[in-house]
Amino acid sequence: MNIEWVGSLAAVITTFCWLPQIVKLMRTRQTAGISLASNAFFATGVALWLVYGLAIGSLPLIGANMLTLVFVLIIVGYKLRYS
Amino acid sequence: MNIEWVGSLAAVITTFCWLPQIVKLMRTRQTAGISLASNAFFATGVALWLVYGLAIGSLPLIGANMLTLVFVLIIVGYKLRYS
Repeated sequence: MNIEWVGSLAAVITTFCWLPQIVKLMRTRQTAGISLASNAFFATGVALWLVYGLAIGSLPLIGANMLTLVFVLIIVGYKLRYS
Repeated sequence: MNIEWVGSLAAVITTFCWLPQIVKLMRTRQTAGISLASNAFFATGVALWLVYGLAIGSLPLIGANMLTLVFVLIIVGYKLRYS
């Protein structure tokens, strides 16, 4: 397996892994166990990765972090709305 | 601000952002709202990032993902133990 495929697979998984969390939140609206601080910091970090990706013109960084940011902001939104 | 600093700050934040979640789990053991699938996939993706970092010899990738993997495995452990 080409090592670049390992990196690409890693990027895809760490981007789309948040979908089950979003589905769970949509179904249960149960947010008590979720840390707002962790998810808010994560969103901040991902936004900085996006800025970095834009600055160096890296399409994989831009794409992965734009999607991840949307997913994490949805999680933060649920936490703020239902806690 | 040098753009490399933005990337480094992004790496530090997306690594250590999970500490508040771990502290919350240690204090409350409340795991119901947390998605096991999301965190297990995230751990898998981070492990692949670590493999990729080792393969290309990137110290920042290795360091950040090794720490993140430890943090996320702690979260997965709490989820498995207290749900």
